[in-house]
Amino acid sequence: MNQKALFPFSYGVYIIAAQEENNFSGCIINTATQITAEEYPKLIVAINKENYTHQLIHKAKKANISVLSQNAPFELIGRFGFRNGREYNKLKNSEYKIGKNQMPIITEHAVSYIECDVLEEIDCNTHTIFILEMKEGEKLIEEPAMTYEYYHTVLKGFTPKKASTYNEEKNKK
Amino acid sequence: MNQKALFPFSYGVYIIAAQEENNFSGCIINTATQITAEEYPKLIVAINKENYTHQLIHKAKKANISVLSQNAPFELIGRFGFRNGREYNKLKNSEYKIGKNQMPIITEHAVSYIECDVLEEIDCNTHTIFILEMKEGEKLIEEPAMTYEYYHTVLKGFTPKKASTYNEEKNKK
Repeated sequence: MNQKALFPFSYGVYIIAAQEENNFSGCIINTATQITAEEYPKLIVAINKENYTHQLIHKAKKANISVLSQNAPFELIGRFGFRNGREYNKLKNSEYKIGKNQMPIITEHAVSYIECDVLEEIDCNTHTIFILEMKEGEKLIEEPAMTYEYYHTVLKGFTPKKASTYNEEKNKK
Repeated sequence: MNQKALFPFSYGVYIIAAQEENNFSGCIINTATQITAEEYPKLIVAINKENYTHQLIHKAKKANISVLSQNAPFELIGRFGFRNGREYNKLKNSEYKIGKNQMPIITEHAVSYIECDVLEEIDCNTHTIFILEMKEGEKLIEEPAMTYEYYHTVLKGFTPKKASTYNEEKNKK
């Protein structure tokens, strides 16, 4: 089996954020995927169980997703993708607002955002698949969205070990 | 709520194919998403329940996914995305091979393919989410993968009503 067969799969780059009591956090994901086209569309995201954001979404049963612009700097992705939200307040130095669902929304270099309820959680070994229902959403700016391909090839970004698409060989390229 | 907030989400363009007894079919999906990075990675796909391919995957408990090249012609996407597999034999006039799991693999303009077992099916209203485990996979050609964005903006392709990301307004653009 050649895991390189998975490299050409296409993804975006998103920040998912949540709050529980006075604890806020957010992390980078590439798995945000629309599943149904109903009045309140359903989506899935997959989040590593060790992530602090996972713990907050599990408790809050809500989460908000921001679609990052292609112009988002590497530092913003590093802030949300490579730091531990238990030790570092990711929101404190970020541009954000509070959504109608009382969850934080990262607005910094965000093309659009959606506010979601958690409908279901499916255990998937290292990750949990959250089935979400979109309840609110806005387009913010007219810029192309960042793709995972752009992050790897132009920004020369790495994939952390906890990511859905982690591959040692891909990081070496 | 503005559903335009969902437009900047990034996806690829894939053909998922399956066989049950002497019935073969395949359809276009944009929801193939890697969830875990284990030795046998897990993925999800979402397929409309009305699709013939849905019925075949549900029975066979196996399915193979081909990642389409950016050079795939509109006709190939139309053949698998806009025709009814119950009435038209999609494989008969397509390049394909049979995988180790005895399921068909579309090789026509495919950058890579993966062979999967179905681990779980989750009902999601119009669609079923299939949790898959990758068992085989190969890279076939060195060409960029087709993105959903490329399909819409360069090929000027439409999204059929049964798709996960169907939106009337987006089709008018």
